[in-house]
Amino acid sequence: MDAIDFSHHLSPISAARTPSPLKSLMKYMSMDGMISLAGGLPHPSLFPFVNIEAEVYSPGVYLPSNTSESDSELLRFNVHRNGRANGQVVDLATGLQYAPTAGFPWLLQYVRDFVRVVYQPAYKNFDVLMNDGSTDGWSKVVNLLCEPGDYILLEKYTFPSTQANWIPMGCKGVPLEMDAHGIRADVLERTLREWDNAHPGVKRPHILYVIPTGQNPTGCTMPVARKQEIYDICVKYDVIIVEDDPYYILQFDTYKLPSVANGHTAPPPPPSYDEAAFLDSLVKTFLSIDVQGRVIRLDTFSKTMAPGNRLGFFTCSPLFAERILRATETSTQAASGWSQSIVSELLHAWGPGLGGYLRWLSGLQSQYVIRRNWMCDAFAKEFDAVQEGDEVIVYGKGTRVKLLSFVPPQAGMFLWVKVYLSENKEYAGLFKSSSEDPETAFEQKLWQDIIDAKLLISPGRFYVAWEGEKKPRDAAERDIVHFRLAFSMTTKEKVDLAIQRLAGVLHHAWGLA
Amino acid sequence: MDAIDFSHHLSPISAARTPSPLKSLMKYMSMDGMISLAGGLPHPSLFPFVNIEAEVYSPGVYLPSNTSESDSELLRFNVHRNGRANGQVVDLATGLQYAPTAGFPWLLQYVRDFVRVVYQPAYKNFDVLMNDGSTDGWSKVVNLLCEPGDYILLEKYTFPSTQANWIPMGCKGVPLEMDAHGIRADVLERTLREWDNAHPGVKRPHILYVIPTGQNPTGCTMPVARKQEIYDICVKYDVIIVEDDPYYILQFDTYKLPSVANGHTAPPPPPSYDEAAFLDSLVKTFLSIDVQGRVIRLDTFSKTMAPGNRLGFFTCSPLFAERILRATETSTQAASGWSQSIVSELLHAWGPGLGGYLRWLSGLQSQYVIRRNWMCDAFAKEFDAVQEGDEVIVYGKGTRVKLLSFVPPQAGMFLWVKVYLSENKEYAGLFKSSSEDPETAFEQKLWQDIIDAKLLISPGRFYVAWEGEKKPRDAAERDIVHFRLAFSMTTKEKVDLAIQRLAGVLHHAWGLA
Repeated sequence: MDAIDFSHHLSPISAARTPSPLKSLMKYMSMDGMISLAGGLPHPSLFPFVNIEAEVYSPGVYLPSNTSESDSELLRFNVHRNGRANGQVVDLATGLQYAPTAGFPWLLQYVRDFVRVVYQPAYKNFDVLMNDGSTDGWSKVVNLLCEPGDYILLEKYTFPSTQANWIPMGCKGVPLEMDAHGIRADVLERTLREWDNAHPGVKRPHILYVIPTGQNPTGCTMPVARKQEIYDICVKYDVIIVEDDPYYILQFDTYKLPSVANGHTAPPPPPSYDEAAFLDSLVKTFLSIDVQGRVIRLDTFSKTMAPGNRLGFFTCSPLFAERILRATETSTQAASGWSQSIVSELLHAWGPGLGGYLRWLSGLQSQYVIRRNWMCDAFAKEFDAVQEGDEVIVYGKGTRVKLLSFVPPQAGMFLWVKVYLSENKEYAGLFKSSSEDPETAFEQKLWQDIIDAKLLISPGRFYVAWEGEKKPRDAAERDIVHFRLAFSMTTKEKVDLAIQRLAGVLHHAWGLA
Repeated sequence: MDAIDFSHHLSPISAARTPSPLKSLMKYMSMDGMISLAGGLPHPSLFPFVNIEAEVYSPGVYLPSNTSESDSELLRFNVHRNGRANGQVVDLATGLQYAPTAGFPWLLQYVRDFVRVVYQPAYKNFDVLMNDGSTDGWSKVVNLLCEPGDYILLEKYTFPSTQANWIPMGCKGVPLEMDAHGIRADVLERTLREWDNAHPGVKRPHILYVIPTGQNPTGCTMPVARKQEIYDICVKYDVIIVEDDPYYILQFDTYKLPSVANGHTAPPPPPSYDEAAFLDSLVKTFLSIDVQGRVIRLDTFSKTMAPGNRLGFFTCSPLFAERILRATETSTQAASGWSQSIVSELLHAWGPGLGGYLRWLSGLQSQYVIRRNWMCDAFAKEFDAVQEGDEVIVYGKGTRVKLLSFVPPQAGMFLWVKVYLSENKEYAGLFKSSSEDPETAFEQKLWQDIIDAKLLISPGRFYVAWEGEKKPRDAAERDIVHFRLAFSMTTKEKVDLAIQRLAGVLHHAWGLA
């Protein structure tokens, strides 16, 4: 089945784009014996770069089952000016020249294969094209679909840059309530059903932005059943879904408190790497249930290789891909030739096919599981923690004073900590009586105390989605504030010290120390 | 003197941008002893990249005075994960991490020094920031300054992508007549003076886009006297000048036909490289006369190193730089870490200071002079050519039939060929009598004949700037068409063959063969 026609979703600017006349010359360039004086290209012999030799990790280096020394030896590959003859998949003479806007052909084919095998789109004629990372990707989607005055459906808590892009354009947000599985389907349905009554004369939202795996900031992951419910509602109300999924590959097992798991912090390593089992363990994507071409999926190499690549890709219908291509021609033009060359040769060196890269991703996953566990374990050590259903409830050490809770994330990089203020005397007294917005005022004060203890975390209010031009009062619940703690970037020693500092501040602030 | 306040030029979208709240955390991250769990950064030990060893040309390789073997040996440098300790100016652990939006600090300082020494801005507090190449740069300037309905002043012939960016936004062009020195100052003055009468109720244009050196497509270069005239008019009418100058460094001596120069094609190589003389030979920039901060200058590494870098930089006032930075945060975020790392280490390896890079640029210039001469010489060989003032007039071989003319470019990559149709019988008969737009119809036919002879060149109509949504009839002069021939990309053998093929087609079409 092919994608259906969604051209009525295009913004007027996107619909008005025309191809460059110079593009019409392309087909002549490759004709036999043709001499082209048409393009203003520097001659590659005048590039200063002759060869790059890269040393990289082998794809199996991080697998828990990797015990052989040889497996962790460094691999080497070259990206030479004329390296195609020596088995390279790209060469610098073309890789550093003006290049196809959609991406390098070899890389596009690789990514297309990856999408087919890992995400399994439910329609046939999906297209892929490279971008300069997901922030660039989302910015291009906004320009593709949004015009001033549009309302965009999104999670109640979201990544701030998501909004920063379209608020200046005069677009508005419709924050949707979440539970442990992400956006609530009933809330989405009601919002759309009641839209015309609630917003007479205002265009109904036609875009849903969602971070389905290891959501930023809440860390929650949307199961496929919820995705299906949401997809069906989007079909009913003709909403385009933007699936921004940078943490997709960082999916974890369920965390168990050390005491529960008989003192073992991490689960024992799996006996061996099994590609089919790895693929099977990953939650199904929106793309996998998208029979219409209604989903625009954003992927990035930032979390799976390195953010400095500034390299990601869209998966979407041919119509959307073509319009994004037109917009790319007059803005970023193409992703960096260095990034595309080096990532291409790395994927090639890691071959055959997708095999090496999938092996790398599985190993990477295991590294983030360990980091998630370090952080959760540290809470269990510094406080009294018990597991209740999905949640870990955290009490003051040796007390029954409930300080905070979190759902140990099953994906991503973030722990979203919910702090309960009701038993804090200072809050109950000073802040609740004198402040218009006592939660935010106390959050600010507590956050500063934590800074003073030499620990930097993100205040929850940064992540509150809002509707209009002005950010409203913190939309958090009554007597509750949140903090986001990233476990991606720190060593075990530092995480232990960080949570110790946090515990010191909280015990003191609650009068427990 | 500092830049004056031009905030009234900002587009409403640009003026409305706010910094990400996450940026407010930056200042805490570098505090002594601080542990940060604030950023969602992957740990650099989880990047697969350990080291890159690059082989590059020495900066003197292309200097005509370079006769020593050792000078053209390859240089080697590393970009290692932890290479700062070994004298690298960047390392992959930070270079491939999320990075400052404005650019890598070392590279920004280098670029700032380059701007100060080479362009000599006339005001003090100019700022520089990196972008993803000049197409990205121009796109960001359009978003910075333009709103739908704005008119943009530009050269009568211009690079098509320049317009493709803002036409879908509903902006319009004001093409300005050019002479051999670029935009005519009197035409600019009259256009602005008469604007309100000619366009009652329409906002006067407040942006001038100009490619001052080796203009694309006409190849002309604007002398500083013309720049000063245009600058003064822009001050009078409060117009922001966007100086898009990718070919700045590719400036050449004046071309002499082989017969004139006693049979010598190229001038004898200079006795030695002299940095001060090289700098002194370059035409002064708009920036050098900009006492107000009214100029936004776009530079790129595409022509001086390689287009695949997708790396360029803005020079502009702090106000404009800050607004562009805000827009970059929510779109491209930062230029590729690979591009910035490798270009930084190359510039460092080529040191000391700006020395090596200036030497490289001087050598590069000499290579493009040779290529310009190859093409001009080939015309002299295949046709009868005479020099008249700035122009080379080209007649059919052994005839007095004037076929074409060109001004041998003193910069850039392009020869802009003016073809005279009045003595072509087919044009005078068939085309002039039957066609509404005989020039365009004949251009199309002639261009196809040239394609059939296995030569691809760009039709002049591609470069005609136009005012409104629909492209009008070709704005070329009566009985004249243009073609753009790039001399940048071809070997001498191919250029000779190309012009031979062109001569064959023209002689045949004019009944001279």
